[in-house]
Amino acid sequence: MTHFAIVGHTARTDGAFSLNDLPSSGGRMDILCRCVNASLFLSHTLRRDVECSVVLLGPPGPQKTVKFSGDSVRSLNPDERSPAALVKKALVLPCGSEFRESSAGVFVRKGGLARLLQEHAFCVLEEQGRDIRKAETLPDAFLLSDHMNFSADEEALLSDCPKFSVGPAVLHAEAAITVLLNELDRRAAGWS
Amino acid sequence: MTHFAIVGHTARTDGAFSLNDLPSSGGRMDILCRCVNASLFLSHTLRRDVECSVVLLGPPGPQKTVKFSGDSVRSLNPDERSPAALVKKALVLPCGSEFRESSAGVFVRKGGLARLLQEHAFCVLEEQGRDIRKAETLPDAFLLSDHMNFSADEEALLSDCPKFSVGPAVLHAEAAITVLLNELDRRAAGWS
Repeated sequence: MTHFAIVGHTARTDGAFSLNDLPSSGGRMDILCRCVNASLFLSHTLRRDVECSVVLLGPPGPQKTVKFSGDSVRSLNPDERSPAALVKKALVLPCGSEFRESSAGVFVRKGGLARLLQEHAFCVLEEQGRDIRKAETLPDAFLLSDHMNFSADEEALLSDCPKFSVGPAVLHAEAAITVLLNELDRRAAGWS
Repeated sequence: MTHFAIVGHTARTDGAFSLNDLPSSGGRMDILCRCVNASLFLSHTLRRDVECSVVLLGPPGPQKTVKFSGDSVRSLNPDERSPAALVKKALVLPCGSEFRESSAGVFVRKGGLARLLQEHAFCVLEEQGRDIRKAETLPDAFLLSDHMNFSADEEALLSDCPKFSVGPAVLHAEAAITVLLNELDRRAAGWS
């Protein structure tokens, strides 16, 4: 199982955003939706062995995490609005500190990055990391930030995580996920 | 200059689609919009040396081509609706067989694949092609299809084009563009 997590520093934690204006009303919810789809979609099918969690740190709080599980998600289409509608549905559901299923394969709970870091041995995908092609082995959990850098508090939490880079250009988070998955696909298929 | 072109077999050729429903009302215009953004966006900037053309073959006709030029496009944001709004604006503008600028860096003309093939030495990105990592040199013009295979007539036009593959998994067109650009970035920077 490969796990991705993306920190949405300004992403709303309730359902009070418009599917017609994800960047502004959703606090850059569009970025997180593209990351969900980059993580899960193959052509005409889904990656059943991938989970993608989006960590929502924006207003009104408290922090929440919404997890998409590739092996059970339904009603997910490749356009941005589709995962956004599933996130919105998750966020209007009352939840506690344990994951609760809001739609098939979509789960929501209170809590953010600190909790996730206890559950998976994340590495961080960022520009200053080691080239993924040069790594003898790659981990199975990858953490990314949205359009903002990790905060000082987050950096402190992440200080022991290995850092990897997908290439010389600074990419959007969803593009980094796509490149990383290509490297994993190649290794799994013996393509080098 | 790197050029991408994506054939949208069902994409509307007028502006009569809703930005709130790109997949259905736009004839999978969402795919083409994601390809435009995958071609042009870096984090916090644009790839100024890339052009991306979308070939629209859907109703009501005639065929049209909308070209985004990374060195002059303005008002383009990373969410799907943003390129869709620029395509819509292009499609409501009367045009002939020569490119006409509909917004800064966005151009529209009548005509489709046959004309484009006269202007660029395209290779085709598809599953059965040669691994891009194994290619000693890569061309600078890349053609992809949307969610449908190329038609028999299109295949005939493309019979002499080299074929390349970005990896063992069958990806959405926008993901293939992202992986290809990563390979070009690495070669330009001496990383691979």
